Amino acid sequence: MSLFAGTFARGAAAAAVSDDAWFRAMLEVEAALARAAAASGLVPATAADAVAAACADPSRLDLAGVVGRAADAGNPVPPLVRALQAAVGERDAVAVHVGATSQDVLDTALVLLARSAVRAVDADLAAAAEVCARLARTHRDDVVMGRTLMQQALPTTFGLKAATWLAGLDGARLRLAEVVAGLPVQYGGAVGTLAASSGAGVAVRSALAAELGLVTTAVPWATVRLPVADLAGALGAAAGVVATVAVDVVLLAQSEVAEVAEDGGARGGSSAMPHKRNPVAAISARACARRAPGLVATLLGAMEQEHERAAGAWHSEWPTLTDLLVTVGSAASWLAEGLRGLRPDPARMAATVAAAGEGSLAGALAEALAPSLGRGAAHDAAAAATREARESGRPLAEVLAARDDVDAAAVLAAAAPDVGEAGAQVDAALAEHEELVEGAP
Amino acid sequence: MSLFAGTFARGAAAAAVSDDAWFRAMLEVEAALARAAAASGLVPATAADAVAAACADPSRLDLAGVVGRAADAGNPVPPLVRALQAAVGERDAVAVHVGATSQDVLDTALVLLARSAVRAVDADLAAAAEVCARLARTHRDDVVMGRTLMQQALPTTFGLKAATWLAGLDGARLRLAEVVAGLPVQYGGAVGTLAASSGAGVAVRSALAAELGLVTTAVPWATVRLPVADLAGALGAAAGVVATVAVDVVLLAQSEVAEVAEDGGARGGSSAMPHKRNPVAAISARACARRAPGLVATLLGAMEQEHERAAGAWHSEWPTLTDLLVTVGSAASWLAEGLRGLRPDPARMAATVAAAGEGSLAGALAEALAPSLGRGAAHDAAAAATREARESGRPLAEVLAARDDVDAAAVLAAAAPDVGEAGAQVDAALAEHEELVEGAP
Amino acid sequence: MSLFAGTFARGAAAAAVSDDAWFRAMLEVEAALARAAAASGLVPATAADAVAAACADPSRLDLAGVVGRAADAGNPVPPLVRALQAAVGERDAVAVHVGATSQDVLDTALVLLARSAVRAVDADLAAAAEVCARLARTHRDDVVMGRTLMQQALPTTFGLKAATWLAGLDGARLRLAEVVAGLPVQYGGAVGTLAASSGAGVAVRSALAAELGLVTTAVPWATVRLPVADLAGALGAAAGVVATVAVDVVLLAQSEVAEVAEDGGARGGSSAMPHKRNPVAAISARACARRAPGLVATLLGAMEQEHERAAGAWHSEWPTLTDLLVTVGSAASWLAEGLRGLRPDPARMAATVAAAGEGSLAGALAEALAPSLGRGAAHDAAAAATREARESGRPLAEVLAARDDVDAAAVLAAAAPDVGEAGAQVDAALAEHEELVEGAP
Amino acid sequence: MSLFAGTFARGAAAAAVSDDAWFRAMLEVEAALARAAAASGLVPATAADAVAAACADPSRLDLAGVVGRAADAGNPVPPLVRALQAAVGERDAVAVHVGATSQDVLDTALVLLARSAVRAVDADLAAAAEVCARLARTHRDDVVMGRTLMQQALPTTFGLKAATWLAGLDGARLRLAEVVAGLPVQYGGAVGTLAASSGAGVAVRSALAAELGLVTTAVPWATVRLPVADLAGALGAAAGVVATVAVDVVLLAQSEVAEVAEDGGARGGSSAMPHKRNPVAAISARACARRAPGLVATLLGAMEQEHERAAGAWHSEWPTLTDLLVTVGSAASWLAEGLRGLRPDPARMAATVAAAGEGSLAGALAEALAPSLGRGAAHDAAAAATREARESGRPLAEVLAARDDVDAAAVLAAAAPDVGEAGAQVDAALAEHEELVEGAP
Repeated sequence: MSLFAGTFARGAAAAAVSDDAWFRAMLEVEAALARAAAASGLVPATAADAVAAACADPSRLDLAGVVGRAADAGNPVPPLVRALQAAVGERDAVAVHVGATSQDVLDTALVLLARSAVRAVDADLAAAAEVCARLARTHRDDVVMGRTLMQQALPTTFGLKAATWLAGLDGARLRLAEVVAGLPVQYGGAVGTLAASSGAGVAVRSALAAELGLVTTAVPWATVRLPVADLAGALGAAAGVVATVAVDVVLLAQSEVAEVAEDGGARGGSSAMPHKRNPVAAISARACARRAPGLVATLLGAMEQEHERAAGAWHSEWPTLTDLLVTVGSAASWLAEGLRGLRPDPARMAATVAAAGEGSLAGALAEALAPSLGRGAAHDAAAAATREARESGRPLAEVLAARDDVDAAAVLAAAAPDVGEAGAQVDAALAEHEELVEGAP
Repeated sequence: MSLFAGTFARGAAAAAVSDDAWFRAMLEVEAALARAAAASGLVPATAADAVAAACADPSRLDLAGVVGRAADAGNPVPPLVRALQAAVGERDAVAVHVGATSQDVLDTALVLLARSAVRAVDADLAAAAEVCARLARTHRDDVVMGRTLMQQALPTTFGLKAATWLAGLDGARLRLAEVVAGLPVQYGGAVGTLAASSGAGVAVRSALAAELGLVTTAVPWATVRLPVADLAGALGAAAGVVATVAVDVVLLAQSEVAEVAEDGGARGGSSAMPHKRNPVAAISARACARRAPGLVATLLGAMEQEHERAAGAWHSEWPTLTDLLVTVGSAASWLAEGLRGLRPDPARMAATVAAAGEGSLAGALAEALAPSLGRGAAHDAAAAATREARESGRPLAEVLAARDDVDAAAVLAAAAPDVGEAGAQVDAALAEHEELVEGAP
Repeated sequence: MSLFAGTFARGAAAAAVSDDAWFRAMLEVEAALARAAAASGLVPATAADAVAAACADPSRLDLAGVVGRAADAGNPVPPLVRALQAAVGERDAVAVHVGATSQDVLDTALVLLARSAVRAVDADLAAAAEVCARLARTHRDDVVMGRTLMQQALPTTFGLKAATWLAGLDGARLRLAEVVAGLPVQYGGAVGTLAASSGAGVAVRSALAAELGLVTTAVPWATVRLPVADLAGALGAAAGVVATVAVDVVLLAQSEVAEVAEDGGARGGSSAMPHKRNPVAAISARACARRAPGLVATLLGAMEQEHERAAGAWHSEWPTLTDLLVTVGSAASWLAEGLRGLRPDPARMAATVAAAGEGSLAGALAEALAPSLGRGAAHDAAAAATREARESGRPLAEVLAARDDVDAAAVLAAAAPDVGEAGAQVDAALAEHEELVEGAP
Repeated sequence: MSLFAGTFARGAAAAAVSDDAWFRAMLEVEAALARAAAASGLVPATAADAVAAACADPSRLDLAGVVGRAADAGNPVPPLVRALQAAVGERDAVAVHVGATSQDVLDTALVLLARSAVRAVDADLAAAAEVCARLARTHRDDVVMGRTLMQQALPTTFGLKAATWLAGLDGARLRLAEVVAGLPVQYGGAVGTLAASSGAGVAVRSALAAELGLVTTAVPWATVRLPVADLAGALGAAAGVVATVAVDVVLLAQSEVAEVAEDGGARGGSSAMPHKRNPVAAISARACARRAPGLVATLLGAMEQEHERAAGAWHSEWPTLTDLLVTVGSAASWLAEGLRGLRPDPARMAATVAAAGEGSLAGALAEALAPSLGRGAAHDAAAAATREARESGRPLAEVLAARDDVDAAAVLAAAAPDVGEAGAQVDAALAEHEELVEGAP
């Protein structure tokens, strides 16, 4: 594990795009291709079995040699194919890489890698969503100050805040699921005609797709990179959702706000300042999520690909898409962990709302006193009560409770923070979430 | 029309996001909101009608005043609301902006704008796709040299090239259509609780969505910007598809390749170099498409939004999303125009394939002569024919046709370019395209 | 003025890149080129004078016609050259566009435009810096809570905060000045050889550079876009500095912090929430600055330009660089305005520091009482004083001042916030600023 | 070495930012800080020596433990400091991390890392520039077709092409050198006041800068990230220059152009298509360079940093800046290697120019024949010669040489491609290059 890996290569997504995972994915493609070619009658089943067996046991292959020759070939497939051919022997080599070009294997392997990495991202997003659902349920009616443009505005509930996060996380998950469901196989041969597939290319493509659980396509997508764009877009959106939840946590945890804290165990202490508790998980989630938009732009910019195979743009996708998967996965993992340890402070939230509501409480008091005292004297009495509260450092509500000339509960109710249909909206978001969870495979 | 507008603000998408369109969209939202509030019993129908009437006739409003005060308010809605209130008079003003906050109106207006601009983009993508379908059909079996990493590789067909473009354009259209179908209304009031909607907020939101043909949501998306991310992602993908088709046109039109030309009428001439014909439409499409990835990154980066309304990130969406719509619209418009005037040169394509095939033709000749001459002499005769062709500047096929010791047609057939299942793939892509076209509303 | 122009096209930079400015810049280049060609003996001085006269009076030219034909030519120079030729008549037309290609004129015009727009940006940055210098001086020793990772950390001074902003703004200005000082002329003819300049091309290039106050180069930079990259980099850096100052203002103006306020006159009110005062200028500065990084990426991505003139990448620079100039100019303009109206609240800052220092004050009190009371009793007395302060809502310092058993001033001094060398650093930053200001032309 | 490292983590820059390099850089900072603190009288020289000795021998430190605790602390400095303290023992621990905060060490280490990585990038850029200088000299007067908008335009020289690449590479090097020369130390303590430096903070900062060969600053730059922006801008510009040279190589190596080839030894072969020779080095350089703009945008976007230390944006710089250094370093390394093996084909270049010049040659022939034959017959004779050339597949120049009725050499000279002042510009670029090389340290 490297120095910054704990922060930026956290979670299962990083493992899903490791070198080892790349090798396994490329070999999975070659094995499936051998079987598909056999099923289509292009090669003997025994040869295909031999290839599949070699692919299942990478220790038989000279993978170090493949690594050493990958850069010279421009990509790792040519040396891998030679290694496979050597492993199975001349007779069964007919079932290696049937009708394929390097890009067929690399693109399909990238799709497999992306699928498993996205599933890892999704698991962390799901965990984060589950916490949000719990928070929304638990704090359904707990008031918290709503803040717009970083200024206190009007009260809302912490339940609605959490339900909004939940809706975002569930939305991001839905988008990722749709993209994964549509990921296609790549198979076209040197220039996409399937000319090296003995007339059975379309059939092999379908069989290969079926083997790998991928979608087939009418034509290759070698230079029309919509599947990469789909991944980029959905991952970028997921990063944005993680970032917006994380920034809320950071802001709610500000010393001056202190309405939530991250209970990170040993984490978050400061060597120089022992009194500090930094919300390290939310901060790290933000840091990871911020890397996404630039990577998405690189992938979209790389969509301009020349003729039948691009001279550079295609290659630039490999490190960029894997970095994107890793950083979004890390962001999701940090967020899940941060939310799991989140400690909301409903009393503090309520106090902030109450403090901001002193004005309306004074108004309600004057209103209540008016019938007995007359409007002018009632106003003066309310002002006096406000002054008393301020000078004694007590909330006005407390001063109010001590009076016997008004029904304190009624006054408080009249001035109570109005959170409108916050509760109903929380319920609706939770219902949608339940549906999503139940609908998942 | 401004100096560069002909290039960068081309097509109907630019008009769809003009100032005028913004005003109309905001007024459409206010009108629909008044009606929705009336339908939910919050305001008298007569007042709602008065508001809708005022919205339908912007000449009654002081729009210049709105423009003048927009920056001070941070957005144009507060002065617009005041202008509307003034227009309808005190009594009916109760039906203006019911329960809403500025962001409700701006976000919903942005969604309406985006929907109509995307439709404009889509019309140009559809036009481009139609040309591609025609090209794929017409040139289904015309061979063209396939090129990978910018090097001649093996033959394919121009039909398959066009079918690949078609699949990309149709794919981009499908993604845009899905995003448009899911665009949501925004309605939550100051902090999202619907507190100013007298308990009917959820009902008003649904009615408003129905009025405008938008989707409703469980909670507001004021700081969870998935709809913006969806638009960004699908537009970025569309730009990438346009770019990859456009770069192919530019490369096929290279002087040294000359397999297509853009027939742009007066366009494309060079003042200094009258012999040049630049593929201006494809070049302009590339230029417009290249602006997209950076704008998408800005929108994704702006997803980190604070608390109940962001202090800057939200605002940065307006010019960025509209620029993105305009530049992708311009790219699509240029591409449609360039493809409409595209003049493929199948003879030139075939000649390039043939020239590259001289080697295999010589081999086939030697093979054909071997039975009569013996392998060694046959090889020498084939080499002599190749030399004769080169020295006379004639294709080997021509030299071959003049011989009477071989069946020239048979030799040519044996050495014929093998385009595998190109034709079947073209047919499949066209079939998918037909389905898409027939499935469209 | 358009709907969002007040926010996003604010300040003089927007005017500096208007259509009108583009025309004037292109005509300035053509006029200077005519004079340079005459000085190098290529054309008669009378013809050059006629061209310069036509350029000085755009009303003589059919600029609407130029706009109309710009897109067809791929750029506006060919129709502009024809309009100029028509304006001066056949005899003097020899002095129009001597030896030049469209890109020579467009690139040099873009450089002129950028220079004047950067000067506008710089004026606003200078204004903002001047306010920061004043704030640093005025509040040199006013304590404020330092905050790291959004948590209260240790005290610093508002002077040091302002001095840090100042250093950033001055640094951004220095970078912009260096870039402007190095901006080069473009002059190479159709493919850069100067073949149409009758052997005097290098001389014309130098003369043209001298005419326009630009730098000359050994070879053209038609496809080596370092000047564009320099502008992009320095503008991106300036945007980043503006953003970091603006976010500090937004955070200091948070309701819960309230250590500064923006006095924006009519600005910043909320229609729905009259008690709010939004720091609209800082928010708008952030919104404008956020658009910069994506635009910079587009310009850097466009540096890959083919052969002697790029097929799209070059064109994509025009709207992108002008948008970048406009948005950074708007950001700087908003920041200058926001800082001008900034109202720091040193008392509130001090109170926050004091509140955070209650703990150390209690410690200092215990320390002071220990000699007379013994360590245990001293600790209890300090705890009691802390409790008294909390219950009465008064700061501990006030409670302390009322005691006659300790030297309150000495205790306060012992627990005083330590701001280290903040003052000396402020002085150093101000001294550097003075040098910069005096060194400016 | 990992699977794609040969392509994307090539060259010395990758090693310069490895985990090992990070540790050495952080320890170099701690060692220098101990010495600077001793020089300023803050700690005993013996303690500083002990710290420096521990830093010089990382095997004494539990670096695995540091890695393990880095993510929890939010950065690796707190556990590193504890490891150092443990290594030197309680007495000498007073000289560890004197007056510093984590960011002081991390920022300064990042600057050291960046400096050494940029030097690695620069070495490859210098190597590439040296080849360009040689090419410019060798091919100073070799004509090549100039191409604009991907169309053949007018002739230029390969020398001028190479000189233009040279100017770009030298320009990129100058920018990197300026940035490196201005890289500053970071030292400010917890919130920038130097409060923990016993009044000697400014002196320690200067001494630390001197120890490390860095620049000192008036105030810390903890949240004003101009040094990072400078690195980003100069690296982005360098990537752009590499990309534009690389795309030229790719385009000149196109099968249809074939004016250069990459002699890559074993590299560039295609398993499926043995006749292909892909310019793998130029393609890989493009792929690496394309990753830069998105990373630059991320760094510029991260400049918005809150208060005295940012909650996420600062952290996002570490992987982003190191990725940028690695990818630009890889791009430069590939370019140097590709250019070293570049094989220009001046004969092919000349033939293309000649073929394009047939028209002007025919004109010159008619002109030469006119005195003897009369204009009409001369024109017919020229047309007949052109036809003869075309039909025989020979260049017109060859047909011309066989005639005895004209001075073929004079006709050729009259129609010779005019490359204007290409040679003089090459000389000027080479002279500037010599100056740069001689001026280098």
